[in-house]
Amino acid sequence: MSERIIDVLIIGSGPAGLQAAVHAVRKKAEVVVLGKVERSAIYQAHVENYLCVPGVTDGSELMATALEQAQKFGAEVIAEDVLNIEQDGELYKVKIESGRQFMARTLIFATGNARKKLKVKGEKELSGKGVSYCVDCDANFYRNAKVAVVGNESAAVDGAITLTRYASEVHLVARKLEASPELRAELSQSPVQLHEGQWVKEIQGEQAVAGLVLENDTTLEVEGVFIELGAKGAMDLAATMGVAMDPETFSFIATNKKQETNMAGIYAAGDIAGPPWQMAKAVGEGCVAGWEAANFAAKQKRADAA
Amino acid sequence: MSERIIDVLIIGSGPAGLQAAVHAVRKKAEVVVLGKVERSAIYQAHVENYLCVPGVTDGSELMATALEQAQKFGAEVIAEDVLNIEQDGELYKVKIESGRQFMARTLIFATGNARKKLKVKGEKELSGKGVSYCVDCDANFYRNAKVAVVGNESAAVDGAITLTRYASEVHLVARKLEASPELRAELSQSPVQLHEGQWVKEIQGEQAVAGLVLENDTTLEVEGVFIELGAKGAMDLAATMGVAMDPETFSFIATNKKQETNMAGIYAAGDIAGPPWQMAKAVGEGCVAGWEAANFAAKQKRADAA
Repeated sequence: MSERIIDVLIIGSGPAGLQAAVHAVRKKAEVVVLGKVERSAIYQAHVENYLCVPGVTDGSELMATALEQAQKFGAEVIAEDVLNIEQDGELYKVKIESGRQFMARTLIFATGNARKKLKVKGEKELSGKGVSYCVDCDANFYRNAKVAVVGNESAAVDGAITLTRYASEVHLVARKLEASPELRAELSQSPVQLHEGQWVKEIQGEQAVAGLVLENDTTLEVEGVFIELGAKGAMDLAATMGVAMDPETFSFIATNKKQETNMAGIYAAGDIAGPPWQMAKAVGEGCVAGWEAANFAAKQKRADAA
Repeated sequence: MSERIIDVLIIGSGPAGLQAAVHAVRKKAEVVVLGKVERSAIYQAHVENYLCVPGVTDGSELMATALEQAQKFGAEVIAEDVLNIEQDGELYKVKIESGRQFMARTLIFATGNARKKLKVKGEKELSGKGVSYCVDCDANFYRNAKVAVVGNESAAVDGAITLTRYASEVHLVARKLEASPELRAELSQSPVQLHEGQWVKEIQGEQAVAGLVLENDTTLEVEGVFIELGAKGAMDLAATMGVAMDPETFSFIATNKKQETNMAGIYAAGDIAGPPWQMAKAVGEGCVAGWEAANFAAKQKRADAA
């Protein structure tokens, strides 16, 4: 298990994460970016609102350009999700899918909108009434209850395993599991009931979630449904760390103008730091977060050396 | 004197102003941008940090692209500076160099770093001790004193004329006046002593400003030197309106995460809203300001119609 001390560890490789990398590197910080570029919301989109890039441009082209730009400046980009983060003195210990581990002076959460919707009947109506997008935020409400997690990737697998510590029965509904071998091994040893090759058709319930109808018309009787699409939810990681959410909506990470969160050395930028969900806004916040994190790391290094 | 009601009036046509225009227009607002693109700090710069624009790119090229983009989306761009802004009920009345006047529901200050330095001996040392960058902020400290204003454009001319209402003697040092005919006419009728074709070599003084040495070795005995380079200082305009500055440094306009100032309907974005002085940050704040201002204007229109 190798351990390196990174100045600025950026979680997420969309516009916010890559712009943060560019600015942090320019300030002489050692920078690692974690995440899969093709998972950024912008990757599927067409962009025409971003200044100085005229015409309708393919998001995937833009992100390829951005990735090359960040790497050329000197940022290391690793296409893996984060599984776990722990505070370790003044540093943060970050474990990624392959089991590799990093120590980081600062973290920038830039993983995009944490609440990817399932878009099925009942989801919107029962949101907050049994439908949740954050295992670590809400697991505690489902002690000894029956719950289900929906999703294919590390967020879903890790969420389901976590829930076994709270709920009496945990189902995982996945079209096709895409988690790391390590995580799959952990899953198979857990009491999670896996429904692979299936997907959700409807969430049932009047005032609260009562059940989950699968495509094969099986109904799972559950009180809670955790929708965990995409990478290990940054919301989950952040919540576990004690990073504070926006106090009004609890749907994004609260930051100040410097993109600082409530925790020293932890920043957030882009969609995960709130609306508007625009590329220009993500890039602007990424710039500030990268800049500030690099300053923070440099100050910490000077203090350590003194 | 024509009067139009504009939804979003953007003062400044650099990256922040033009990105604000793009996003406000996309939200169906009627948008006017005031300012000279070639005056943006980015215009003279080489850019390589801005995401998705790889390589070293000429600022002037970038701004030509941005201008075309904003105009294509439907923003009207007028290459004139603002001379005066007044509150008029829930609207803002804005007068520009040619004497034209607009009524606006919202204003976005996006004029870049308001404190352009003269870069002469004594400037830094005596900053805040007689050297000022904001006539409307500091004129009151120079009642019955002798002062000088340095600059070629509307900011300097208008500042000098304003100071005649406070100071006992006002000098204007200008390499070559570039103000509008209207403003020049006003200047020639004022008691301002114009030193055209001259420039400042040094600002003298120990604990406070004592004099200004010109290139021809004339010394003007003054207690105050107002450095007003560039367009009519947005700081001056903002201060006159009652827009609050950053409480720590007083060197930029204070905004929240929505780029709102302390005044309803007034926003700031880009360098004028504080560091880091980066294109990506300006564009991000422009996006948010344009978005929020368009929402504000739409809400006001609905209320007016109700």
